[in-house]
Parts: sequence; C-alpha cells; structure tokens
Amino acid sequence: MSAGGGAGGWELDRIVAELRRARRAGTSAERCTSRGELPSREALVGIVAGLRAALYPAHFGPPDLTDEAVDYFVGQTLDATFRALHEQVRRALSFDAAHGVGSRDDLPARAEALTRELAARLPRVRSLLDTDVRAAFEGDPAAKSVDETLFCYPGVTAVTHHRIAHELHVLGAPLLARIIAEIAHANTGVDIHPGAQIGASFFIDHGTGVVIGETTVIGERVRLYQGVTLGAKSFPVDESGVPIKGRPRHPVVEDDVVVYAGASILGRVTIGKGSSIGGNVWLTRSVPPGSMITQAQARSEVFADGAGI
Amino acid sequence: MSAGGGAGGWELDRIVAELRRARRAGTSAERCTSRGELPSREALVGIVAGLRAALYPAHFGPPDLTDEAVDYFVGQTLDATFRALHEQVRRALSFDAAHGVGSRDDLPARAEALTRELAARLPRVRSLLDTDVRAAFEGDPAAKSVDETLFCYPGVTAVTHHRIAHELHVLGAPLLARIIAEIAHANTGVDIHPGAQIGASFFIDHGTGVVIGETTVIGERVRLYQGVTLGAKSFPVDESGVPIKGRPRHPVVEDDVVVYAGASILGRVTIGKGSSIGGNVWLTRSVPPGSMITQAQARSEVFADGAGI
Amino acid sequence: MSAGGGAGGWELDRIVAELRRARRAGTSAERCTSRGELPSREALVGIVAGLRAALYPAHFGPPDLTDEAVDYFVGQTLDATFRALHEQVRRALSFDAAHGVGSRDDLPARAEALTRELAARLPRVRSLLDTDVRAAFEGDPAAKSVDETLFCYPGVTAVTHHRIAHELHVLGAPLLARIIAEIAHANTGVDIHPGAQIGASFFIDHGTGVVIGETTVIGERVRLYQGVTLGAKSFPVDESGVPIKGRPRHPVVEDDVVVYAGASILGRVTIGKGSSIGGNVWLTRSVPPGSMITQAQARSEVFADGAGI
Amino acid sequence: MSAGGGAGGWELDRIVAELRRARRAGTSAERCTSRGELPSREALVGIVAGLRAALYPAHFGPPDLTDEAVDYFVGQTLDATFRALHEQVRRALSFDAAHGVGSRDDLPARAEALTRELAARLPRVRSLLDTDVRAAFEGDPAAKSVDETLFCYPGVTAVTHHRIAHELHVLGAPLLARIIAEIAHANTGVDIHPGAQIGASFFIDHGTGVVIGETTVIGERVRLYQGVTLGAKSFPVDESGVPIKGRPRHPVVEDDVVVYAGASILGRVTIGKGSSIGGNVWLTRSVPPGSMITQAQARSEVFADGAGI
Amino acid sequence: MSAGGGAGGWELDRIVAELRRARRAGTSAERCTSRGELPSREALVGIVAGLRAALYPAHFGPPDLTDEAVDYFVGQTLDATFRALHEQVRRALSFDAAHGVGSRDDLPARAEALTRELAARLPRVRSLLDTDVRAAFEGDPAAKSVDETLFCYPGVTAVTHHRIAHELHVLGAPLLARIIAEIAHANTGVDIHPGAQIGASFFIDHGTGVVIGETTVIGERVRLYQGVTLGAKSFPVDESGVPIKGRPRHPVVEDDVVVYAGASILGRVTIGKGSSIGGNVWLTRSVPPGSMITQAQARSEVFADGAGI
Amino acid sequence: MSAGGGAGGWELDRIVAELRRARRAGTSAERCTSRGELPSREALVGIVAGLRAALYPAHFGPPDLTDEAVDYFVGQTLDATFRALHEQVRRALSFDAAHGVGSRDDLPARAEALTRELAARLPRVRSLLDTDVRAAFEGDPAAKSVDETLFCYPGVTAVTHHRIAHELHVLGAPLLARIIAEIAHANTGVDIHPGAQIGASFFIDHGTGVVIGETTVIGERVRLYQGVTLGAKSFPVDESGVPIKGRPRHPVVEDDVVVYAGASILGRVTIGKGSSIGGNVWLTRSVPPGSMITQAQARSEVFADGAGI
Repeated sequence: MSAGGGAGGWELDRIVAELRRARRAGTSAERCTSRGELPSREALVGIVAGLRAALYPAHFGPPDLTDEAVDYFVGQTLDATFRALHEQVRRALSFDAAHGVGSRDDLPARAEALTRELAARLPRVRSLLDTDVRAAFEGDPAAKSVDETLFCYPGVTAVTHHRIAHELHVLGAPLLARIIAEIAHANTGVDIHPGAQIGASFFIDHGTGVVIGETTVIGERVRLYQGVTLGAKSFPVDESGVPIKGRPRHPVVEDDVVVYAGASILGRVTIGKGSSIGGNVWLTRSVPPGSMITQAQARSEVFADGAGI
Repeated sequence: MSAGGGAGGWELDRIVAELRRARRAGTSAERCTSRGELPSREALVGIVAGLRAALYPAHFGPPDLTDEAVDYFVGQTLDATFRALHEQVRRALSFDAAHGVGSRDDLPARAEALTRELAARLPRVRSLLDTDVRAAFEGDPAAKSVDETLFCYPGVTAVTHHRIAHELHVLGAPLLARIIAEIAHANTGVDIHPGAQIGASFFIDHGTGVVIGETTVIGERVRLYQGVTLGAKSFPVDESGVPIKGRPRHPVVEDDVVVYAGASILGRVTIGKGSSIGGNVWLTRSVPPGSMITQAQARSEVFADGAGI
Repeated sequence: MSAGGGAGGWELDRIVAELRRARRAGTSAERCTSRGELPSREALVGIVAGLRAALYPAHFGPPDLTDEAVDYFVGQTLDATFRALHEQVRRALSFDAAHGVGSRDDLPARAEALTRELAARLPRVRSLLDTDVRAAFEGDPAAKSVDETLFCYPGVTAVTHHRIAHELHVLGAPLLARIIAEIAHANTGVDIHPGAQIGASFFIDHGTGVVIGETTVIGERVRLYQGVTLGAKSFPVDESGVPIKGRPRHPVVEDDVVVYAGASILGRVTIGKGSSIGGNVWLTRSVPPGSMITQAQARSEVFADGAGI
Repeated sequence: MSAGGGAGGWELDRIVAELRRARRAGTSAERCTSRGELPSREALVGIVAGLRAALYPAHFGPPDLTDEAVDYFVGQTLDATFRALHEQVRRALSFDAAHGVGSRDDLPARAEALTRELAARLPRVRSLLDTDVRAAFEGDPAAKSVDETLFCYPGVTAVTHHRIAHELHVLGAPLLARIIAEIAHANTGVDIHPGAQIGASFFIDHGTGVVIGETTVIGERVRLYQGVTLGAKSFPVDESGVPIKGRPRHPVVEDDVVVYAGASILGRVTIGKGSSIGGNVWLTRSVPPGSMITQAQARSEVFADGAGI
Repeated sequence: MSAGGGAGGWELDRIVAELRRARRAGTSAERCTSRGELPSREALVGIVAGLRAALYPAHFGPPDLTDEAVDYFVGQTLDATFRALHEQVRRALSFDAAHGVGSRDDLPARAEALTRELAARLPRVRSLLDTDVRAAFEGDPAAKSVDETLFCYPGVTAVTHHRIAHELHVLGAPLLARIIAEIAHANTGVDIHPGAQIGASFFIDHGTGVVIGETTVIGERVRLYQGVTLGAKSFPVDESGVPIKGRPRHPVVEDDVVVYAGASILGRVTIGKGSSIGGNVWLTRSVPPGSMITQAQARSEVFADGAGI
Repeated sequence: MSAGGGAGGWELDRIVAELRRARRAGTSAERCTSRGELPSREALVGIVAGLRAALYPAHFGPPDLTDEAVDYFVGQTLDATFRALHEQVRRALSFDAAHGVGSRDDLPARAEALTRELAARLPRVRSLLDTDVRAAFEGDPAAKSVDETLFCYPGVTAVTHHRIAHELHVLGAPLLARIIAEIAHANTGVDIHPGAQIGASFFIDHGTGVVIGETTVIGERVRLYQGVTLGAKSFPVDESGVPIKGRPRHPVVEDDVVVYAGASILGRVTIGKGSSIGGNVWLTRSVPPGSMITQAQARSEVFADGAGI
C-alpha cells in the first residue's frame, strides 16, 4: 500500500521540524544530552517482581519450586534483581545530578552503595509484610487463607510496592520510588506516596481510590477501605505561585484506627489511637483516642471549613 | 562494571540466610513442598482472553475471521483454553488440599470434571452476557453501537470476567475465581467478588471504584454507576478475633434498581424492585419497591447509625 | 495427560454448536463478514506509545538518545506510527461503514487523509501538553521536577491520551478515540470521554475515579482531584427507551476552577471562572464566577433535587 | 553514557547522506515506492510451520491434542495460515509486477486464487510426504520409528519444505518458493531449488551439503546422502554475459536410484532406473539403468572433461 | 479485506476432511490419543542452553555475573533446567511406551530417576568438555584464546551438544538425544549420532558436513576437519527390506588420529593410533597405527570396492 | 508434581559443589571477576540485522517504507545499532584487556572511537556489496532479479556478514568479528574467517561447506561453489605444541578465478588470474594465470603430497 507515497505523504519533514521547535521552546528547553538518564518503568516492573519473588518464593517463584532449590532461586533472583536495580539507581542519580540534586561524580559507586543498602533491608521488609498479610487475612471475612491474601489482594500488592518504594525514597532514590508507587497505583487503584510512613499490620481492603499523601504517618494495625483519602487541606505557595515543598501537611493516624470507605481526612491532624472514622466522613480536625466519628459528627466542621484535599 | 565485585558485593549469603529464617518464622511456616501449587495469574489472563474470544469471535478473534472459519476458530480456541484451564484447576485443587480443603486424591480427574462442567455452561454465559451488552448500549447515551459497547466498555469487561469467575466459584474453584476477579479489578477498577449473584441485563457505567461483596444478590436490569459500594456493615468475629466467614452480610438488590455514583449500600438489606438510589447516598436499611432515595432522605439513618463498610 | 481423551472429552462439537446458535440469535445477529473490521486495542497501545515518544523523545525515547539522533528517532517513530495508525483508522472506517456510518468507498484513501490530518496537528498537541505538564508541576507540592511530572503522573498520562483521542474523535474516528480513552482509564483510573473539550494547563491530581462526560467543556488552568465526576444528571430517552444521543448534558467548567476530591457536578450547568468546588460536594446547578462551594452550601439543592449522575 | 554526545557523535547526517547517494547510484537505482513489496521471511517461517502442523497435527500440533479437537485445530490453523500466506502472495505478486512480471491489477484477488489453489493441493502434499517419511524409516538403520523420522530428520524437514515450495513455484509465486527453500537450506544444509521435480518416497540422509538444481527431475524411491550435488555443468550466457535462464541443465534421475555421499552429477544427463552412484563420484554423462558407478569407473571421463558444476 | 469471504472461501471443510482421511490412511494410522506425547524441540533448545550456562557460567551466564553470585546462578539454573528436562523425559518415555518400548507405568518417577542420573553426570561432562576446549585452542592457529574457542567455535558447540545427548542416549532417552543432536546439526552443520562414543580432547574444525554414525568409536585426542564422514558402508536388511538395526557398522578411530577435510571412512574398520587420513580420502578398510593415508594410497581399494556410506 | 521433593531431589548442593571445583581446576582457572565481559551473540545478531537494514532499507526495512521516510529510518536504525555495537565493542575490549591484549583504560572512549570508525566505513561497505549482489545475479542462471539475489541468496548473506566482520577485525575487534562470522556460518554453512581479504564482485553459489581461511587473499570477480575450501596445508607449532599464530598460510586467489564445487586449495599458493579450478580438485601448488585445472591434472601432486587442510 502506497500510504504517503504520493506528493507529500505525512509531511514528515515539516512535522519533525515543528516538533523540534516545540522542544526547544519547551519550559525546560529540552536537550537530550544535558538531561541525565531517565529510569525505565518497564525495568522497575521487573525489579519489583524479582524482589517479591525473592521475598515470597513459594508464592511468586516458579510453581514447582522445591525446598532443596529455594535458596538457589532466592540468591540468583536477588543477584539479577540487584544488578538491574543498580542500573536504574545509577540512571536516577544521573537524572538528579542533571537537575542539580547531588553531583555527577562517582555515580556507579554511589548507585552500588545505595543498592547494597536496600539489599540489607530486605529481611526487615519481609518481616513487616508478614504482619500486613496476617492483617489482611484477619481483616476480611471473605479471605479463605493467608496464602490467598498474599497472592490475590490488591491491598497487599499495594503495600508490598510501598514498603519497597519507601526504602528507596528514604535511601535517596525518590524518582524510582515514585515510579514504583505509580506501578502499584496503575494496578490496584491505590495511590500511596512513597514518603508516607506506615507501621506494621497495615491493611487496605478493596483499595480503589485510596490516596495517602507524602507526609502521612500511620501507626500499627491500621485498616483502610476503598476510597479513603489521607490528604492535604491546602498548601502554601511561594511568591511565584509554586507550592512550597516538603512541609508536613498530611494526617497522623495512630495505632488501631479504622477508616471506612470514602472517608477523607485532610491536613496535619491527628486521629487518636483506636478511633473509628465512618464511611464518607469529611474530617479536617484532630480527634482524640477512641473517637467514633460518623458523618453526623463530622458535618459541623464541614459547614465551618469545607476546603478540599 | 564490577558491581559487587569487591569485598562483600551484595552480601548475598547473608541476605539469603536471613530471608530463609524469615520464611521459617513466618505465620504459615512456609515450606514449598507442603504447600500445594499456586495457580498462575498470567495463565488465567490468557484463559479469560481465550474464553472471551470463543464467546465473541467476531469481536475478540482475529480481525479478518470469516464465517467459513469461525467454528474452527471457536473449537480450537476452546480446546486450547480448556486444556490450560484444566492445569490451573488442578493446581487450585492441589492448593486447596494442602490447606485442608478436599483431598489430594484424583486431582487430575476432578480438575477435568470441573473444567468439563464449566465448558458446558459457556453457552448460558454467552446468553447472559448478550443481555448485559444490550443493557450497556441502552443505558449510555454516549454508546454508538452494541459492538462498541462490547469492545470498549470497562463495565462490560468486568461483568464478562465476573460471569466466568462466578461459575468457577460455584463449581469449587474459588481461588481461580478470585484471581480472575482481581484481573478485572486491576483493569477496570471494578471489584466484584465472584460469589456475588447477578441477574441478566446488568450494567455498570464508568465503573471505577465499584465494590460488590461476596454475598450480594442482584436482580435483573440493575444499573450501577462509578464508586458504588454494595458492602457489609460490620462482621462478627470469633473468640480469637478472626472474622466468621460465609454469613450473608451484603445487600439484596431487586430487579430494575438504579444506584447512582458514589452511593454506598451496606449490610444485608433489601433494595426493593424499581428503586432509585441517589448519588453519594449512604444507606444501611432496606427500602421498599419503588423508593427514590436521595442524600436528604438517607441522612437521618446516618445520624443514628453511621458505621462504614 | 489424557484430558478429554475418553468418550466425550470437552464435548467440543456440542459447545461449538450451541455457541453458533447463540451468535445467530444474538441481538445483532453476528456475522463476521458483514461486520467490518474491529480495530486492535493492542495496536492502539503501541500507537499511543509511539506518538508519546515522538512528542517527548527525551522522556519516552531510548534512554541514551542524543541530540544528534533525536530528529531521526522522531521521524522514524512518526512514520512507523502513522502507518500503524493508518491501518487502524481504515479498520475503524470499515466498521463504521458496516454500521451505516459513512460509505465503504475509498477506505484506504480516507484513512490516509485522516491520519495525515492527525499528523499535522501533533505539534499543537505537544504545545498544549507542555502547558499541562507545567500545571502539574505547579499544582503539586510533592512534585520534584517538571520531568518527573511528565514521566510519572497518571493525570498527565490521562491527559496525553485524551488530547490524542480528542483529535481522533473530532476528525471522525470516534471508535479509535474511545479505545484510547479506555486504555488511559485502565491504566490511570481516569475516565475522560474523548468528546470532552479541555483547555490548556489542565491538571488532575491522583486521578482515580475521575469521570468527565462526552459533552463537557473545560476552560484553561482547571484543576481536578481524584473522584471528581463531571457528569450528566439524567438523559431523555426516545419512545423505545433508547437514550437520545448527542445532546449537551455535561457541565461547562470555566477558566481557573478547582474541583476537590469526590465532588460531583452534574448536568449542563456552568461553573463560573475562578470558582472552587469543595470535596465531596454534590452540585447540579450553575454557580457564578468566583464561587466557593462547600458541602454545606451544596446541601440545600440536594434536598431539593438529589438525582444521580 | 554520553556516546556520541560530544562534537560529532557518529556523524549520522554524513553517513545517512552517503548511503542515500549509494542507493541512488545502485545498479537498480533503488526507490522504495517503485519497488513493490518484499515478502517477509519471518512470516514465511510461520506459514510453513502452520502448514506442517496442519498436515501432521499429532507431531507438530500442541503436545496434548486429542482426537476430539484435532479437526478444529487443523481448520483453525489452516485458516490463519492461509490468511498469512495470502498476504505474502499479494506482496510477491506486487514485487513481480514492479519487476515487469504480471500486472498490478487485481493483486488481492489473484493472490486469493493462488492461495486457494495451494490449499486445494495440500491433501496431495500430505500423501506424498507420507511416502517420504516411510522411505526415511526404511532407509536408515538408526531410525527407531516412523514418528521419530518425521519429527527429527533434517532430510524429511527439507523435503517437507520443498513439496510446499514446489507447489508455490508451479502456481506462480517463485519468490516465495525460493525463500521457503532457503529457510530449509539454512536449517538443514540441504539446498533444493523449488523448481526441481521430485517423485514419491524420496529420502535424503544426513543431508548437509546436498544441492539439487532448478531443472532436476527425480523419479520415485530415490535416495541421496550428504554432500550430493545434482548440478549444472556449465551454462550459456547471452551477448552481455548474463546467463540464459530457464534451460534444462540439471540431471534426470530415474526411479530407484541411490547416490552416495559426496557424489556430483552434473548437466542434463540421465541416471537410469535402479542405478547406484558411489561416494565422491564425479559424473557428467548419462548411465543406463542398473549401472553401478564407482570412482574408478567415473574417472575416465573426468580426465576428458573436468568442468565444474 | 474479505479474503475467503465469498462463496467457498478456502473450502476449509473439504480440506479438513481430506486431511482427516489422509491421517487415517497413513502408514501409522495416526491417532493422537494412542500416540504418547512428543517432546518439544523448543524446550530442548532451552534445556541445552541451561545446561551449558550451568557448566560454563562465566561464558554463557549473564555478562556481569560475579564470583559471589555464581553458585546461586548455577544452582537455580540447574534446578529450572532439571525440571524442564524432567517433563521432556516424561514425554519421551510416554512416547516410547506408546511404541511398545517400556511400560506406561510410573512414568514420572522413571523420568525423575533418569533426570537425576543425568544431573549426577554433569561434572564429568564438564571435565570432558574442558579437554575438548583445550584441544580446539591448540588445534587451530587462528584461535586467540581458550575462551574464544569455547564461545565461538561450532565444533565445540557440536561436541557440547553431543556429550549431553550421548548421556541421554545411554540413560534411555534416545529420542531426546536425537533431537538435541539435530539441534546441533542445524546450527553447526555437524551431524553426530548420539550413540557415538567419543574420547577426551576431541576437536572438529569448521565442521560443516561432518557426519559421525551411531556405532562409531573415537579415542582420545582425535581431530576432524569439515566434510569428514565416519559412516556405514552398507547395511543388511531383513526379509521385508527394513534395515536391521543396532549392528556395529561404523569405524573405530583410535587415539591421536587426524582426519582431513572431506575424507570418508566407511564401515566397521579400525584406524590405528596416530594415523593421519588425508583430505578427500575414501577409505573402507582398516589401517594400522601410524598410517599416513593419501588419496593415492586410498585409490586402489576404491577401484576394487566403491560402495557409498 | 513433587519432582525432587523427596529425600535428595537433584542433589543440587553436591552438583553445584562439584561444578565449582571443576571451574577452579579448569585450564583457565575461571574466575568471573577477572575475566572481562563476553559479548552477546544475540546482540550481534541484532546489530548485523540493523546494519543490513540501514544499508538496504528497501529490502530489509519495513515492507511499506516510503521514499519520504527512508532517511529517518536509516538514521534512527544506525543510531540504535551504533549504540548497541558500542556496548559490544566495549565488552570485547574489556575481554581483550583481561587476556592481556590492550589496556583496561578508557574502554568506553576507545569503544566509541572504534564504533565511529566502523560507521564511517559503511558507505564503502555498501558499494562493495552492490558489486557482490550484481555478481550473484549474473553468476546464477536461476536468479530472476537482483532484488531476489540480495534477499534470498545465502552466499550474499555470508558476504554481507563478512564485509562487516572484516572491518571489525581490521579495526581491532576480532572477537566480535569472529562471532559475526559464526552467525553467518550457522545460517548459511559458509565459514569465512573475518581476516580474509576479499575483492569486489565476489559470489558464492549454494555455499554449504565453503571454508575460507584467515590469511586468504581473494581478488575481484571471483566465484566459488559449495564445498570449496581455501585452507592451510599444515602449520608450524612452537616448542610446547601450540600452533604459531598469524603466519600467511592460506591461498592467494587472483581476479576472475572460478573454483567449482568441492575443490580444495591448500597452503600459501597463488591461483593465477582467470584460472578455473574444477570440481573436487585437490590443489596444493600455485598455478599460473589462465590455468584450467581438472582432477586429472591435480592428481599428480596428490600422489606426491597429500596432506590435508
């Protein structure tokens, strides 16, 4: 078929030229060579899959893995995954350096040190995840076994991604952490910023629409349902209108809190230990330990306050 | 590049040993060989795709399929899909047996019988789906044709997965059913437990955030919008705090009901035939046939009751 | 394994015959050969990826692309993508013709013209997207750089898909547009009908559960949060109960409006320039420029009106 | 890594320009758009695999194919393969037309007719191949079963390709035929020109280095060993030095002949029925039926003649 | 495109029926279900690659494998490969049983025992291959390093396949062995029957066209060049014309023999220790240790004997 | 299936330990970390395919490439290919350095320079290949068009690989060159050492079994047939028995020579301009220009000399 074979075709030359001009006029005056390297989302999908298989080989390794072979599988999977991660960390540090964060020196060695440190933290990540999986089993009457929970539940998938992403965030690879968080978001509808600090035995049921902000702090044995937002109420901007970054602006949720479906808790407020926040509640103030907040109770402040996330 | 080539590297030996210890200390004392086999989510993605292509070959078969060839395509696709499903059913039964559900005897034959029974039910699944597709076309003013509805609508995709998953659930393969439901959930944001019973001509528009619980019963010609929850209000736990499984705890929605976006209906309540539940309504009691429930009407009970899903 | 090897097997012949009967009894009396060709969703995934890489080669091209090579990359990627798009457009026009929309004549040439026109519009799409990316960076305190925003944010991904889908919709390939919109919906939880008209500097944060209807009109510098619905309140049906298609039935949102999480704006209402609509607000009437609507203010109309999406 | 990031890089512009000039100066003054379309070797690999699976589904179909499913598999495989072949035939006819062979008119319909005719000949191809497989089993003391012969023997693979290629050659798709012959050549080391006419029960053992020329005629029950050449002795050229094409210039080998390893038979000579040609023999004259030719006997003519293939 | 869309199409029904008849009339009256399962050539390609990587991880493992990780890589690769091999062995035994060789009982256990025995022999295979690699380096003036020899030389590739195939042949999986030999044949042009017994330090240079028959016995430090045949001279047939299988009919080549390009040694003859057989020599008698055979010397017997492989 | 699940399994620990010991005892005392990096054969397959597509985009580019798009295709393909090649060159230099050839310093920059130099030579490679393609068309009466020759002929494929490999050999990447030569050898049966110097208008017909040695020098317009060896007669070894590398030991073939099938020319002899060497001739002495050598003429020297390649 002679598509474009006549006079003109797609007018490739013109479109290429116009796109070149657009790149040069762009807000960031894109130039490939000054940009550093962007990580590969696809590679990170594989890296998380590798880590998950090494953490839970009986569930995410090959179906007929034997006890005899399991350590070989774990060791080999970790090695391949760490090498892949090392390359992505190197790119992320290069990207940071190109944006003025950190230097360009010694990128491979720094990437190696960061990867090694993540490696060292994996056993602790596994221990935390064990508490999350247990919490999922105990928190859902439809769960038939702990294994099913680990294997099927999107909330568990989201937390697995978060616990890995959070370590990368803390260790200095926030871009990788963010991409991993978005991989989980795309697959589960759960959007947890990698900066959020989350204690043991955390469970999100159903999960679609959950948003947990960057500076959120969550205690132990907390349970959330679908559509819950732990968000910011508003944020200060600098004189040029750009938001001021990094301020604590999301809730502190203490141990043993349950937040039901569709509830929104906004701002740097504290939800006291053991509280229960009802479905669809809109809450922008702190509540003391043991509170039982329903829409009726929450209403008064809405009338007074009302601003969004 | 000498990643890990120096003294120490990733310290694989230490991490592998720590992860081994974590596995042995795990709540389920993981041992690969006593665990049974877990199904493959990837295989199930292919199986659902195969069944969908066999059910609607003109839409999900090859683009230039002819009437002359269609039965060969359907037969061959079914055969390959049934064989793949048979293997996954066998694994699921093996997994169940390892968890004390059913025996280890005669797994291949039982898997074959179950697969054969699913096969026999496919024509009925197709007939039901035809009513759903028709309902989608009639329920959305933006729909240009029945074909577009079948091909593009996430609600139709979710229901297709559900009707297959539900049969597997009923036939004794709940883990497979659950994984298929989660595949749909990940792709559409619609979370339907495979245990839910759903009548003909069912339509979910937009769909993101819809949650339909395990013991829900839905009549014919029901329509839901995005963010609707048909959930449980609370659930009893046994003396050790584990939820008691299997009790009816989700709504009964009778024929010809419409539930608008963001509404939550919680607990074993009955929504009478022909009722209309308004957007964002929070409803935890039964309503008689023909009810028109708005936020205003729903509010009173919230003040009295308030607990979430 | 002798699955199906005994007398009977899967009873393929019977199931194939029953499915054939179901196809013939179907609402659309499916016949492959009279159906036109359906586009390939998989191909469209690749086409959007190709266009995105050509629009932003430094971000979505190969990781080590140089300034020397970038125009070759852009030109070759566009050429391959246009050829793939041309084939999908041809199929879509064939599908339309089989459904009585447009003629069967001259499909390849018309597909080529449509593809060429889309090509010509790409530089403008890039310019619009630049404003969106900038808006995302300025609208989120957690954003570290413009590049991160472009690379990671699901809202930006959704808008990228929309701006391409919208051009295809306007140019006469609504089925392709719809499939592209659903690709974005599946990946981001953001459901924007390709018919929606959206001005520059548009930002959706978090995004899961956002629904924007077919006849929505959005001005410049508008910001939405997760769970926002810009929907229809109800729709007229013809005498046979089928919705009347094509009427304006979704909101007009003027410049500089912010709509917070979970708010629903329904019907052909106008949200005046610079207004702010609070979280979870349910709004079915127009508001003048500069309004600050909270749940309290919105409540009165709910009591009076209350109907769904 | 900034490969090519410095002054100059790969000098892409210069190399692209030089290659453009080389194309324009080429002997065939290459222009893409006047060239017709070249077939895809990769597609032809798949087409031969499809035909082979349809001809011998128990050997080249899925490993657990059942008698119940076999006809569905065959029908579906044929349909998909014929559609793929149809596209390649269309390209080949387009290529021919661009080279002055045949017209550009009605290419799809002519391609369809040719494909349909090939389809009609497949049962006969299968019957011939059955005789070849049987001959392989009977001709090799190392063969353990007929099935092994069909599945493993490169000679059988080569003949399978040839019998398909020969039909395409005869039906008017010599370029496709040639590519299929080269696929076999690359995989087996056996180079049979698709024009060669080969009778039933043909067996090539080991096969590497066998060459059978375009105008060769082989009877029934002929057996060849590795390194045998059935070639041309010399060929007339026209006044500009280009060989005159199409003249019979390769041997006629009658029924029941055996040619041992490394023998060369050159020119339009006839090897009489039942003859046996010894290893490494160099033969450029006809021999009567029942001849037993050894190196000693062959030598005399070498001294007199000696020209090559 | 409406290929086949008119009356008739490919006439699939007729062709499928004719092919069905051909299958039923076939020499082996093919029925899928009585046939046992055929191994997968593709799986065996992967298995040989896995074993080669485990044997020489620095050469065929991942490019940046470290000493820290190498044992994990080897263990995991072996485990995955043994499991894949186990499945292929099971199929091969099932195939044998369907052909009357061995029983159908206890196939998985017997397959496991055979696989375990192959596993146990791998270290010895590695030691033998080390001598072959060394011989290649010392035997070719163009070889730059031992590593290059292992990595690039087709003769080394062929011997690697042979040493694995030979163990499978001896252990009772001759069909798998044969397929592996044919994989090597297709890739290198070297055709070694897996039954051949070959001593240490074996080297084949260039290799194309080499044929080594089933009952060949080769000593240590033997070197062959391209086109060498170690074949059978003739073979006895039983009363129905089928060759009598299993008789020693190929040469015995003692230690330190060199056979130059194109030479053919045929029949159960013995080439004495340290002999040198010249290029293109045709030899059908034994020669004592230390012989230097040239074409001239070989000629006399040709005149007397002359039969082929 | 519990393969290996009982006591013992595959005895992985024991086999891994034995293989570790074998590696340590190996002739080269393999240690991964001191070894440098081995190139990837798979990557080189892609690189040659990329170069071939850039050299002949109308034949090896996408089937519907237009004149408008061809330079973009060429530029983008070259860029991607050069980057891939750069990585393989870097590995090869690292490998060399680990074997004492060249230093470890500045590997990426040296790899870049070498890649850039290869890039600069591509237009000349294209011009040479044009002469080869034309020679193939003119040299084979079965060739229907120049395009067919380029697209299908294994001899042309082999020469294409050689001309690229030879440049890499000369530029200092002999290991890459060798692997490329072996890729061609595996696909065509033609084994040309990359060191061989070959003039314009070179044609190999059929090709299987052709061997051309490292120090061969071939003039213009030379034609070879299958099974021709241009080899070494013998080679000197040093005191430890290792062949002395690098000495001229293969033939010089002057312009306009034809060598027929199966002929062997061995040693540093010169075949004078315009000579014709008959099939199966065994030649170990120089012949003057214009010679016509047949087996009869060649025989005398065989009697006197006789040693192999």
